Amino acid sequence: MSQRDWAYLNRVVEGPSRPLRQLLDAGRDPSEIARGIRTRASWLGELAGQTEARHALDRAEQDLADAAAVGARLITPESPEWPHTEFDLAFGFAATGRSDHLRSYQADAVPPHALWVRGRPLGETVAQSVGVVGTRAATRYGIEATRQIATGLATHQWTVVSGGALGIDTAAHESALAAGGLTVVVAACGIDRTYPARNATLLERIAGQGSWISEYPPGTPPQRHRFLTRNRLVAALTAGTVIVEAAWRSGALNTLSWAEGLGRVTMAVPGPVTGSGSLGCHERIKEGRAQLVTGADDIRALLGAAGALDVAEQYELAFAATPVQALSRNELRVFDAVDPAGSEAQTVAEAAGLPLPLTVHLLLDLVRRGLLTRDGTVWRRDDTL
Amino acid sequence: MSQRDWAYLNRVVEGPSRPLRQLLDAGRDPSEIARGIRTRASWLGELAGQTEARHALDRAEQDLADAAAVGARLITPESPEWPHTEFDLAFGFAATGRSDHLRSYQADAVPPHALWVRGRPLGETVAQSVGVVGTRAATRYGIEATRQIATGLATHQWTVVSGGALGIDTAAHESALAAGGLTVVVAACGIDRTYPARNATLLERIAGQGSWISEYPPGTPPQRHRFLTRNRLVAALTAGTVIVEAAWRSGALNTLSWAEGLGRVTMAVPGPVTGSGSLGCHERIKEGRAQLVTGADDIRALLGAAGALDVAEQYELAFAATPVQALSRNELRVFDAVDPAGSEAQTVAEAAGLPLPLTVHLLLDLVRRGLLTRDGTVWRRDDTL
Repeated sequence: MSQRDWAYLNRVVEGPSRPLRQLLDAGRDPSEIARGIRTRASWLGELAGQTEARHALDRAEQDLADAAAVGARLITPESPEWPHTEFDLAFGFAATGRSDHLRSYQADAVPPHALWVRGRPLGETVAQSVGVVGTRAATRYGIEATRQIATGLATHQWTVVSGGALGIDTAAHESALAAGGLTVVVAACGIDRTYPARNATLLERIAGQGSWISEYPPGTPPQRHRFLTRNRLVAALTAGTVIVEAAWRSGALNTLSWAEGLGRVTMAVPGPVTGSGSLGCHERIKEGRAQLVTGADDIRALLGAAGALDVAEQYELAFAATPVQALSRNELRVFDAVDPAGSEAQTVAEAAGLPLPLTVHLLLDLVRRGLLTRDGTVWRRDDTL
Repeated sequence: MSQRDWAYLNRVVEGPSRPLRQLLDAGRDPSEIARGIRTRASWLGELAGQTEARHALDRAEQDLADAAAVGARLITPESPEWPHTEFDLAFGFAATGRSDHLRSYQADAVPPHALWVRGRPLGETVAQSVGVVGTRAATRYGIEATRQIATGLATHQWTVVSGGALGIDTAAHESALAAGGLTVVVAACGIDRTYPARNATLLERIAGQGSWISEYPPGTPPQRHRFLTRNRLVAALTAGTVIVEAAWRSGALNTLSWAEGLGRVTMAVPGPVTGSGSLGCHERIKEGRAQLVTGADDIRALLGAAGALDVAEQYELAFAATPVQALSRNELRVFDAVDPAGSEAQTVAEAAGLPLPLTVHLLLDLVRRGLLTRDGTVWRRDDTL
């Protein structure tokens, strides 16, 4: 049973694993790879070393049972709810090597091979989502800014994705829930563990109203390296990430770097300069690595998707004679820059004069709206539109 | 006596006056122009209309006496303390028509024909200066941010120039004085009037420790249009202007627009997004019309002049084998972009990949340090350096 094979792989190969990803991309199926690991097959390549210590550890039945006991399921690229679009875009971008922001993390810029999920189908909850992250040592200001932003996003059908940590993350999740919106928590430990313990109730509520996910098998403790690889999932699953409050060396900056390296829209909320709470936000804006946003409206405008339309725009959209007339100015710039014969995203970005991450986001959105088609890295438009 | 002629012109022609500036630039001396106005000479051109109502009003002796009574003097382009460099750069830039930010104010983008001054020689106080302006309706946060910035600037020998208004302006002046630094107040009314009345003591202290200046003859009341033309002087006299706290329609934004239109460095301090106090600052940063700065160090780094060198830089400077080795990275980019045969500032900016205002500022600084020469709009470097 394939589910057992995936569970076995998830246990013996701690994600992210580039060698496992390469074998899967090369067409080997999970059963074959699982068998290869157990039998120390010659074609394992680098995966041989990665699985040397754990290859005999077959806890698949137990892991699936432990997950089921807390209401969690294992999802894989074969599952209908797998967020293919998000992962393809993010890790496809990273694979082009266009961004040098991942540096030492480049090896980890691969999708998870499987995810443990509680709550709603992940593909649905992240379909229109924003990463909202920040420091655990949040100030009253940071909490209030987060509350306003997450509430504004939730009210406009944007899912708030965060890491479930104390401080800003918690405020983001709680505000989204309070506004009746969707929220996704990406845990850095097993799906059967509640970390931080203080957030036990919040996590259960997310499992009920949104999605609670983890890349790690049941029982896995939260450790420093897992926070960093967890951050990549927050960035990969969302159209953009906003840091609300982050001091000089906040982990939230790592999430923002992931968003940058994965070609997502990077945003930062400013704050008082008389304290150090927003130092990291200000630095990223100064460096031109994040766009200044002051609220949910700015975020929605930058991400420019259908959910971001205001009343006037919806009116125009409803009465536009053609779908092209209904496009916003930036959407139109991107649309016009696409050659009917096909263009690479980089070429479109240059022609449109927009940042590449924003261009990719708008291209994807135009595909969703049926105005463009995408074939691998090539985007095309119907010349008759 | 020429001083009488200037005083007469200052009274009958309210500055800024482009027609008067054009006559002066065309080589007519102030006595001749004064005589022409009194006699309604045919060559007055547009100045005839501007002086029709007031031409018979000769209060020159009285104005000079009223000014002397409060310890003020009248300075003109003939005075040693006239800030020629600052005005040439600012209004020279505006005259190129490169900026469309002045819009309806374009006609006013000319230097004053004379200034009333109390305190230190103006040319000296503004030689290394920054405009620090903001809302009258300042919050506690705005006041504290201003205090930190003005103190940091004053400590590093940067003069704080502002408008003397309540709120941010007052905090800027007071903090500069408290730090033992220089400060300049540009009044929007006659030099013999204390406005706002609450700042009487502050203005007297500025007259003692810095410079208190006005473009208007004694007795002139503050009126709305004078605040706007006063703002242009804050922008023109300084290397750059920073807005510390400015809501949606704050007058401080007008000063920042002047700085932009006059080719000066434009900066804005972020603040809490949970209130509206910093809305104008955030908008300008989002629009790319101001650079985000969080403190005096950022401002000094952007303005990049000698006074901004930190200890390590001073060490490097002291031990650099040649003046060129002592240049900062941005200074070097600009220096290298200048053709020994001569380059326009716009060409240098493009070659250096830096904003034009910053480029002009660095060019000027390189001239001051003897590394470049300037001939009108052409900048040259010695090929042997």
